[in-house]
Amino acid sequence: MNMLHKTDKSRVKRTHERGNFDRDVVNSILDAMPLAHVGYTVNGEPLVTPTFQWREGNHVYWHGSSASRALRSAEGTSVCLTVSILDGFVMARSAFHHSANYRSVMLFGEAFKVEDPVEKIGKLNTFVESFFPGRLAMMRPNSTKEMKATTILGMEILEGSAKIRTGGPVDDEEDMDAKVWAGVVPICLSVGEPEPDTGLSTDIPLPDHLKNLQIG
Amino acid sequence: MNMLHKTDKSRVKRTHERGNFDRDVVNSILDAMPLAHVGYTVNGEPLVTPTFQWREGNHVYWHGSSASRALRSAEGTSVCLTVSILDGFVMARSAFHHSANYRSVMLFGEAFKVEDPVEKIGKLNTFVESFFPGRLAMMRPNSTKEMKATTILGMEILEGSAKIRTGGPVDDEEDMDAKVWAGVVPICLSVGEPEPDTGLSTDIPLPDHLKNLQIG
Repeated sequence: MNMLHKTDKSRVKRTHERGNFDRDVVNSILDAMPLAHVGYTVNGEPLVTPTFQWREGNHVYWHGSSASRALRSAEGTSVCLTVSILDGFVMARSAFHHSANYRSVMLFGEAFKVEDPVEKIGKLNTFVESFFPGRLAMMRPNSTKEMKATTILGMEILEGSAKIRTGGPVDDEEDMDAKVWAGVVPICLSVGEPEPDTGLSTDIPLPDHLKNLQIG
Repeated sequence: MNMLHKTDKSRVKRTHERGNFDRDVVNSILDAMPLAHVGYTVNGEPLVTPTFQWREGNHVYWHGSSASRALRSAEGTSVCLTVSILDGFVMARSAFHHSANYRSVMLFGEAFKVEDPVEKIGKLNTFVESFFPGRLAMMRPNSTKEMKATTILGMEILEGSAKIRTGGPVDDEEDMDAKVWAGVVPICLSVGEPEPDTGLSTDIPLPDHLKNLQIG
């Protein structure tokens, strides 16, 4: 997490080569974690917004309100989409070698807007179905007004980097006998028991797509 | 999570006023979640890096390797530091009204570099102690070489916005009888059982600052 220093590199798998980075690693991270942070340049200044992303083959998509300043001005501009999963605190024997275990992807590219109404519906459907398979069929279709109120941006997965750090601390040899607890404190995202909406009819059971949900 | 549409606003508490946003809310989110995404503009293009942040009064700080391209070029430039905590999936009766519960802070400002060696040590000490009280006293001080290899950036908490969404879905009246499970799927960060480093002497007990650790 930018806590990476020289000696840490042995534990970090890094792939950063234009057009040739490890797509399996990139995909696995994107597919594990819907939460992304998208960076735009608005009036010359950086803007980082948390948003959900979803992947379709070689493209990653995100959406939001058509009223959003960032989304409206992003079309055709350079963006950076970053997905990070924090896996643990790495507790070293010296302050300097403390680190974090994580998986992260940074993607660079130009954002495009999905304009075609049919394609737009298709993308949103993929979004819902990729996280909650079977849910779409239970719901009414989006109205024309709703579709207008929704902007979908996308970018090709072409350039970026994936980083994964795993394992324990990498301490200096001379610190190995220090009387400091060293190791890893694991961190993960937990999904709790679904809470039905007030007023939800008791004859509507929890659907399969919300059972055993995992994220991260 | 940018899934916010008009009718959702009733559930979102938003504060965005230059120099006058709700500092208690901002502080509570910053203090709950070390993971931040910092946006820079490098060569005119956005770059979003995951990093740990910590707060000291009216300032927020982050650090990394002095070799980092983003950190080196950030001094004196506009940055956006965003902290997001995902609290749940909000499952609505229509696709459109699906949302997320979350707490997020977006801070805008100019990054400065902490140059003074004594101040630099102080900031790093605060970083360690704010998450792991008592740990600092167990470890050797940073070496001069380590301090040189570390760059600390900071920004004043002056302009930005905090957003919090809580509660269940806000559905359209005409969808309330739809046979769709609606409610909230809670999500939280869980801290697992600390895993001692291989070779850690068995006479070093788990310190108090790693017991009952909470994040988010």
